[in-house]
Amino acid sequence: MITLHTWTTPNGRKPVILLEELGEPYEIVPVDLRRNQQFEPGFLKLSPNNKIPAMVDDGAEGGTVTLFESGAILTYLADKFGKCLAPSGPARWQAMQWLHWQIGGLGPMLGQLGFFAQQDDAFALDRFVKEADRLLTVLDTQLGSSQYVAGDDYTIADIACYTWVQAATERLQAPLGDILASKADLQRWIALVGARPAVQKGMAWQV
Amino acid sequence: MITLHTWTTPNGRKPVILLEELGEPYEIVPVDLRRNQQFEPGFLKLSPNNKIPAMVDDGAEGGTVTLFESGAILTYLADKFGKCLAPSGPARWQAMQWLHWQIGGLGPMLGQLGFFAQQDDAFALDRFVKEADRLLTVLDTQLGSSQYVAGDDYTIADIACYTWVQAATERLQAPLGDILASKADLQRWIALVGARPAVQKGMAWQV
Repeated sequence: MITLHTWTTPNGRKPVILLEELGEPYEIVPVDLRRNQQFEPGFLKLSPNNKIPAMVDDGAEGGTVTLFESGAILTYLADKFGKCLAPSGPARWQAMQWLHWQIGGLGPMLGQLGFFAQQDDAFALDRFVKEADRLLTVLDTQLGSSQYVAGDDYTIADIACYTWVQAATERLQAPLGDILASKADLQRWIALVGARPAVQKGMAWQV
Repeated sequence: MITLHTWTTPNGRKPVILLEELGEPYEIVPVDLRRNQQFEPGFLKLSPNNKIPAMVDDGAEGGTVTLFESGAILTYLADKFGKCLAPSGPARWQAMQWLHWQIGGLGPMLGQLGFFAQQDDAFALDRFVKEADRLLTVLDTQLGSSQYVAGDDYTIADIACYTWVQAATERLQAPLGDILASKADLQRWIALVGARPAVQKGMAWQV
């Protein structure tokens, strides 16, 4: 059985959406960030960086796999069940590069924007608004020439980007202004991905 | 032939170190960040996010692979040549989670620290010093129970973390103070990894 230790954040929803897409059984152990459960010893054993999500697969080949980092978990599950990530060839690496782009760029920069949007630091806020605009423009441009983030097929790169873009749409309206609404190809893709039943289930998941 | 489009930054050195470790032929096309060559149309075709490194492998199975994002490039090369990343099983995923931790955490946060160390913004600087300390403590703790970042074997997770920790040692002494020097297991690992000939060649590479 696959167990997710997670919460209702952009990173936390990613593996929920993927497991719904895969149609595989799983269970969720909520890690309540409001109660600082990410700092409890039991969770730190799984995720020494005190971040959700973490995953345990006690049915893995070669021994139980425990994993932290949402991008590693998405890659593991997609590879294990053979869906949302090509097993080899250029299509695999297209998806991997955009997954890494979300993990190393879009996620951290939107995360910092969310933090500084609630502080009194106009200089830093301006920096992260500009960086968010730059990154969302890169994504919009990519989606102007392909149906999904990494090409013609829906992949874990879409799942990774979607939860963050959706969170920005809901929670970063004030600092972003019309930056999101002005990007037509991004909006097309938000509607396309958001219509998937697995995405809707994952985004609606609440404790 | 594998061609790296790269520069002498922490992310830019990662694939140089790995290709030296692999002992495979490659060529480098320098992308001079001082001359803003990362914004030139030819480079943006390879890396629409205007970041180095990017890679082209015209000898890939299934067609030429072009890749941006250092973590994706490390994973591609390690998988292609069967070194520095287990092909399957728990050891593979240990390395993948720590690679992702560097890509999504250590790299972006040290990057922001480097930026704010040169600005007049004490609030933001304090935030990123604390986050850098937290992340380096996580790494130090992990290295207290294993020889390398992801266990007993040297992997791409070591390469990914090393270039950033080394850059912090050289360039972030002022904001970090004795944070790096105080972490004994981290210092042991810096010496261990830094002694590898491939690491020395990759870190010494200059245009």
